[in-house]
Amino acid sequence: MKLARKDLLGIQDLSVEEINLILDTADSFIDVSTREIKKVPTLRGVTVVNLFYEPSTRTRTSFEIAAKRLSADTINIATSTSSVVKGETFVDTARNLEAMNPDIIVLRHSAAGSPHMLSKVVRQSVINAGDGAHEHPTQALLDMMTMREKKKRLAGLKVAIVGDIAHSRVARSNIYGLTKMGATVSVGGPITMMPRCIERLGVEVHYKLEDAIRDADIIMMLRIQLERQETNLFPSLREYARYYCLNRKNIAAARDDVLIMHPGPMNRGVEISPEIADGPYSVILEQVTNGVAVRMALLYLLSGGKS
Amino acid sequence: MKLARKDLLGIQDLSVEEINLILDTADSFIDVSTREIKKVPTLRGVTVVNLFYEPSTRTRTSFEIAAKRLSADTINIATSTSSVVKGETFVDTARNLEAMNPDIIVLRHSAAGSPHMLSKVVRQSVINAGDGAHEHPTQALLDMMTMREKKKRLAGLKVAIVGDIAHSRVARSNIYGLTKMGATVSVGGPITMMPRCIERLGVEVHYKLEDAIRDADIIMMLRIQLERQETNLFPSLREYARYYCLNRKNIAAARDDVLIMHPGPMNRGVEISPEIADGPYSVILEQVTNGVAVRMALLYLLSGGKS
Amino acid sequence: MKLARKDLLGIQDLSVEEINLILDTADSFIDVSTREIKKVPTLRGVTVVNLFYEPSTRTRTSFEIAAKRLSADTINIATSTSSVVKGETFVDTARNLEAMNPDIIVLRHSAAGSPHMLSKVVRQSVINAGDGAHEHPTQALLDMMTMREKKKRLAGLKVAIVGDIAHSRVARSNIYGLTKMGATVSVGGPITMMPRCIERLGVEVHYKLEDAIRDADIIMMLRIQLERQETNLFPSLREYARYYCLNRKNIAAARDDVLIMHPGPMNRGVEISPEIADGPYSVILEQVTNGVAVRMALLYLLSGGKS
Repeated sequence: MKLARKDLLGIQDLSVEEINLILDTADSFIDVSTREIKKVPTLRGVTVVNLFYEPSTRTRTSFEIAAKRLSADTINIATSTSSVVKGETFVDTARNLEAMNPDIIVLRHSAAGSPHMLSKVVRQSVINAGDGAHEHPTQALLDMMTMREKKKRLAGLKVAIVGDIAHSRVARSNIYGLTKMGATVSVGGPITMMPRCIERLGVEVHYKLEDAIRDADIIMMLRIQLERQETNLFPSLREYARYYCLNRKNIAAARDDVLIMHPGPMNRGVEISPEIADGPYSVILEQVTNGVAVRMALLYLLSGGKS
Repeated sequence: MKLARKDLLGIQDLSVEEINLILDTADSFIDVSTREIKKVPTLRGVTVVNLFYEPSTRTRTSFEIAAKRLSADTINIATSTSSVVKGETFVDTARNLEAMNPDIIVLRHSAAGSPHMLSKVVRQSVINAGDGAHEHPTQALLDMMTMREKKKRLAGLKVAIVGDIAHSRVARSNIYGLTKMGATVSVGGPITMMPRCIERLGVEVHYKLEDAIRDADIIMMLRIQLERQETNLFPSLREYARYYCLNRKNIAAARDDVLIMHPGPMNRGVEISPEIADGPYSVILEQVTNGVAVRMALLYLLSGGKS
Repeated sequence: MKLARKDLLGIQDLSVEEINLILDTADSFIDVSTREIKKVPTLRGVTVVNLFYEPSTRTRTSFEIAAKRLSADTINIATSTSSVVKGETFVDTARNLEAMNPDIIVLRHSAAGSPHMLSKVVRQSVINAGDGAHEHPTQALLDMMTMREKKKRLAGLKVAIVGDIAHSRVARSNIYGLTKMGATVSVGGPITMMPRCIERLGVEVHYKLEDAIRDADIIMMLRIQLERQETNLFPSLREYARYYCLNRKNIAAARDDVLIMHPGPMNRGVEISPEIADGPYSVILEQVTNGVAVRMALLYLLSGGKS
């Protein structure tokens, strides 16, 4: 089976079959990263451009490793060294890149919708590596891959997502994906961080951590962006942690075999306590490992590969 | 035929035969970038260092893609992360690079003549990727390649170059190249941006846009560097645009089949209006595509390749 | 013979046999960098991450070239673009990298002991590329390789190291290595730059340049870090240079066939005069060339290669 689309812009417009195809393909790439020779010639001659308008270690590195394991060439463009400083429009930058004939452009941008605009402008495949507070589809795919691997299913799972829901592209992509795959999603966080009308996405809304995670199979703690503090969304980190830091005590509300996830980078002691982050039910590092496999799967499928 | 020189420092010292050799070789590389597997093993084991003392997306990316399509390895060094901050002299940096045995050094530097100095210091091939307001030979080569491709000749063409001629390495390299190849060049721009004695380079000088582009086969609009405004070379962008922005109206002075070029990045609405930039006679994106081919040709020829 | 260790953290814990193994292996890699095709397939499929928390051209470039000559893939992470800005702990960054399954992590960090901490956290091989004022083992190995190549032995050599001994990881690693290999080390510099109890490392201590270099076979001049001036370790560069700049006159105290070394980047006219830096006994650029070979040797040996 092939992925019959040019781009991977978000989870919202993926079908259940497409999500399954991507996750199955990712599963089949897991072993490449643990072999002695961690490289297959599948995408030789393919050029992947990582166009990052926001700083990122983990996502850029994950895409770069994924591309290299498939023998693709990678070109990194980060804003600080880019001609955006010279005042060129985003569309012109896009068309210029297109004219150099790469094959896939991986875009991270602070403006929601940028990858969609890019995909309309260029004939190359575009992968959304995070656009503003909108979507971060590869994160949601690696999250679902990890849940499926550990719980052997997605349908019927109860997943709690806790933190700054309003500003989280990770939350949004996961809500789209998980509800589509038949999981139940509950979100939790302070009312200042909860988007209005979030119920319309088919999730339960709670303002207390314990309520949000009650009977959860999976808890996904979101990173508090420390720079938000200035905008008065919460009084202090200390105050936030008091009510929303997942710890040994409040986790009791969840199921005994609950899995703990976090998209990283973690603020230990703010949204997650060290004993939970490093505890036996944390699958936070499996998420990172699966991230490489999911990105390999997408690079492969968008290049016309079959599962 | 081989390119019998170690370096590509400028257009000024190239012969007509050498320019033809480079353009012919570039033509032959065009199809590599449109194949399904965009890679040939020609320069396997060759190391290309991109040493950029000025920020650049397009030129660095173009060189990096060119090198990778030929299977060369690339090393990027940008000033911000370089030991220039530690106060080492340019010559010492050069000798250090030389001692690591790369094969080709691509240099962009704000000081005119830097590539010439580098080429004297190191035994490696040096390619000038722009030195101050002096030369930008790969840009002129891709410009000439594009003109030749579209107009089937260079000799006899009338080319108008409009903008900040005094500070433009693109203008200078094109003037050297085009006059050498038998084209007629006219330059236009405000008197504050016109270098003294520019006529000695064999060009016509005009201070009105319409005069400069009259009967032109090609119009090359130069980028206004916004930071120059502070130096009082022009009163305001608005004022500049009023007299020198190429638009649907003033373009009538040129030939009906005139081609529009721009080295990028463009300031839309300043030196070029959107309807011209995106219009039917614009070959601005073909320039970018040809840039990769020209750089492949140079990397190939300087490595001892034959046409 | 194999290198029976996971990491290369410092010279202090290497045995004489291990140092000889690394230097012999490096010797055997020297010719790869001078061949026409400067690449061997030895480490195909191996991923080397250059994790640099301090700026560096020479060391990062040297590791990157070394990795590519062995056909390994390289991933560069520099702090400015890294998630350290997002407040993640060093250990979390390390674990995340580990989860992406690279093979070797090359770390430069301003905190002494960071590579040791990293090596405990991750299962990958760690190479110390400089940690604070602690160790810079690959520099000392390339220094010893250069001395051995030129003087045909290490045992019995008299090596003078002059400059800011207290803050120099280069000095420390060389002292560990050279005393271990049977050389005599004397250190020289102003008393404000001399660590207390340095004699315990088995070196002679002098405060006058001429005393330190007397009868030396090798003089290694250290780089004065210009930023230290503010901390009042010396009154002025002029004053420092007056007493500690190696020049044509004071070098007479050393042996006639003395070799001059410097880890770079040099401050010409501060710690070393141009006539010495560029003079006939300078092997400063051979050090750089040998640096690539030493790093190839380490990448090879830590990947399980045999000499």
